[in-house]
Amino acid sequence: MIHRPGEAVQDHYPEGFAHCYGCGHLNEHGHQIRTFRDGHDTVARFVPQAYHLALPGFVYGGLVASLIDCHGIGTAADAALRAAGREIGDGPTPRYVTAALHVNYLRPTPIGVELELRGHVKHASERKTIVEVTVTAAGVVTAQGEVVAVPMPATMLTDP
Amino acid sequence: MIHRPGEAVQDHYPEGFAHCYGCGHLNEHGHQIRTFRDGHDTVARFVPQAYHLALPGFVYGGLVASLIDCHGIGTAADAALRAAGREIGDGPTPRYVTAALHVNYLRPTPIGVELELRGHVKHASERKTIVEVTVTAAGVVTAQGEVVAVPMPATMLTDP
Repeated sequence: MIHRPGEAVQDHYPEGFAHCYGCGHLNEHGHQIRTFRDGHDTVARFVPQAYHLALPGFVYGGLVASLIDCHGIGTAADAALRAAGREIGDGPTPRYVTAALHVNYLRPTPIGVELELRGHVKHASERKTIVEVTVTAAGVVTAQGEVVAVPMPATMLTDP
Repeated sequence: MIHRPGEAVQDHYPEGFAHCYGCGHLNEHGHQIRTFRDGHDTVARFVPQAYHLALPGFVYGGLVASLIDCHGIGTAADAALRAAGREIGDGPTPRYVTAALHVNYLRPTPIGVELELRGHVKHASERKTIVEVTVTAAGVVTAQGEVVAVPMPATMLTDP
């Protein structure tokens, strides 16, 4: 299959594992975060809803953490594709889960603007992938995160 | 005002600051997490919706992070009340925000059961409060978190 630039990592999660509240394209209630390649790194964009607030004017930190989480996992999956010389969409995207999540809230994230998340792989091995994610709002970095991603363990395979 | 045992820390956030997506009692779209005193510590309980999944059978990690975040912030606010010899509800609850959030996902959190969050204050000063939070599902600890909470800065006061 030829890679189409508009395709996201999460578009090709296997159907049984594409219901994540953060990034599953089959979860109609969820955020449907989409991770795209951008040079050596990745990018995702998201516009919070008006009710995703912490205090008036500012985005809820739990949402910021969720965006970092799923974009980090998507970036780890993309790193596995790249390591195998694969393109997004030339087969199912490998599925990773979060072992640890760290978020530093540098300043309040304003609500009402598009957020840009950039992912950068800091470490990749068969055992785990560590991804750094920055969150930018209106040109200002408001949060930095780190996601420790591991391949989905067989113990998470349940009967549908 | 006499403390009623059934009252939560968040029930007494000032009206202008009670719309948090995670714990504001005035946010009809949000999680409405409620933090109660339990001895020296705090407890909150939450039942995820069926669509709050990561993979089939397991709770979305971003939701787990969100619960830890808001219960940690509620616990920090309660610590400030206790330090002042105050009871929940004898006036407005002081408002804290998250400076940093760390979550270790120890094992998958099963969906379909009530989650119990326990908060414990590890460090408290005027500048910051550090709260440890454990998440238990069906008697098993599935995640541990740490929230660095700071008093809401004046820069977060916006005109309504």
